[in-house]
Amino acid sequence: MIRTDPSVASAEHRLAELGIRLAAPPQPFGVYAEAVRTGDLLFLTGMLPTEGASARFTGRVGAEIDVRAGYEAARLAAINALAVVREYLGSLDRVARVVRLGVAIAAAEGFQDHPKVADGASVFLQEVFGRDRNPCRLVYGVASLPLGCTVELELIFEVLP
Amino acid sequence: MIRTDPSVASAEHRLAELGIRLAAPPQPFGVYAEAVRTGDLLFLTGMLPTEGASARFTGRVGAEIDVRAGYEAARLAAINALAVVREYLGSLDRVARVVRLGVAIAAAEGFQDHPKVADGASVFLQEVFGRDRNPCRLVYGVASLPLGCTVELELIFEVLP
Amino acid sequence: MIRTDPSVASAEHRLAELGIRLAAPPQPFGVYAEAVRTGDLLFLTGMLPTEGASARFTGRVGAEIDVRAGYEAARLAAINALAVVREYLGSLDRVARVVRLGVAIAAAEGFQDHPKVADGASVFLQEVFGRDRNPCRLVYGVASLPLGCTVELELIFEVLP
Repeated sequence: MIRTDPSVASAEHRLAELGIRLAAPPQPFGVYAEAVRTGDLLFLTGMLPTEGASARFTGRVGAEIDVRAGYEAARLAAINALAVVREYLGSLDRVARVVRLGVAIAAAEGFQDHPKVADGASVFLQEVFGRDRNPCRLVYGVASLPLGCTVELELIFEVLP
Repeated sequence: MIRTDPSVASAEHRLAELGIRLAAPPQPFGVYAEAVRTGDLLFLTGMLPTEGASARFTGRVGAEIDVRAGYEAARLAAINALAVVREYLGSLDRVARVVRLGVAIAAAEGFQDHPKVADGASVFLQEVFGRDRNPCRLVYGVASLPLGCTVELELIFEVLP
Repeated sequence: MIRTDPSVASAEHRLAELGIRLAAPPQPFGVYAEAVRTGDLLFLTGMLPTEGASARFTGRVGAEIDVRAGYEAARLAAINALAVVREYLGSLDRVARVVRLGVAIAAAEGFQDHPKVADGASVFLQEVFGRDRNPCRLVYGVASLPLGCTVELELIFEVLP
């Protein structure tokens, strides 16, 4: 019996176990590509918590929406990111690791709980790719984001050769 | 008769067709390099909408200045970026592609049209390098930028080996 | 008598000359890695001006704290970064160069002196690695940062092969 090594090739399997179906990847709102590969690195356009062409989570955390909704927004944006990765690479199992995750959070003045919001993306990525492939992370509170969205993710992946 | 492949080597030609002459690249305001190459990647310092040592576009989009001026600010910053690239590489034709464009926009509270501002840089880069070499893109609304500038660009290029 | 080439291998020596002892690197506040290497690049998690688990510099420059304190905050965050680099690489002398430094500054509305704050990190890195290995630089004024910190650093290093 042949078993796939879970530490190397199980991202698609884990995603299915989580019961998540990736929708069609988001369409560009401007003059740019959704993903660019250079060498073994795959850079993604800023991922938003959208469904289809619409923002699903808008407003600033600590003002219009709370930390829990911010967490869900970050998770949704990360799911959208994987839709782009799968479209570009054919399979999530071609991801060697997540190199860096950036989380820009539209936040009220004085907000300090950015990491709790960012974990929405981080926990999801860990569920799919495993702890060994966790990225480093940048987290900021920004003034505003496209479409009034609550979060925007920066993502860099390393691709298996 | 030898013709240069336009998809590979026409950036300098397209720039000339646009009637754009690159000025001397911006001088650092601090202790850093304008560009750093590592492997095939060229990272640039944050590019501002300056002319010489002066900010040409200042203020927040949606407050002190409008979207159209923000678009022009992003375009000017992208022109400044190419001045740095040419100085560093000798010719824009050594650019294999634009990997990532980040656009930080000083924006009024509640501003949502960030992509329309960012397109000032994106459209210009597409005019010069062609659609096939469009970057992925990150766009944020920030609280403030150096010199009170309206936009700041992050740029990563892939260089031909 | 064998002398080490100071332009290549003196970072640890310079740090000692500066009288700086690196503390234990900061512990993650969430689900991520402090550093990720891919190829010859080392990406770091956003570095904060913390001591142990506590923020040492909080508040916005130009509001709660002044430019001089912001400079010190940026310097402390850069020192924390080197603690991570040494832990990950074993020695700072394995750094080929600093590729990019990003400085996100929590700043009051209308603040313009971001470069003076960012220099706190830049000058320190130049003291340790030398002028030839200065990074390019991105500087932003953001609305808020984790733990209410004054600055957060983005860092990418090139590692000696």
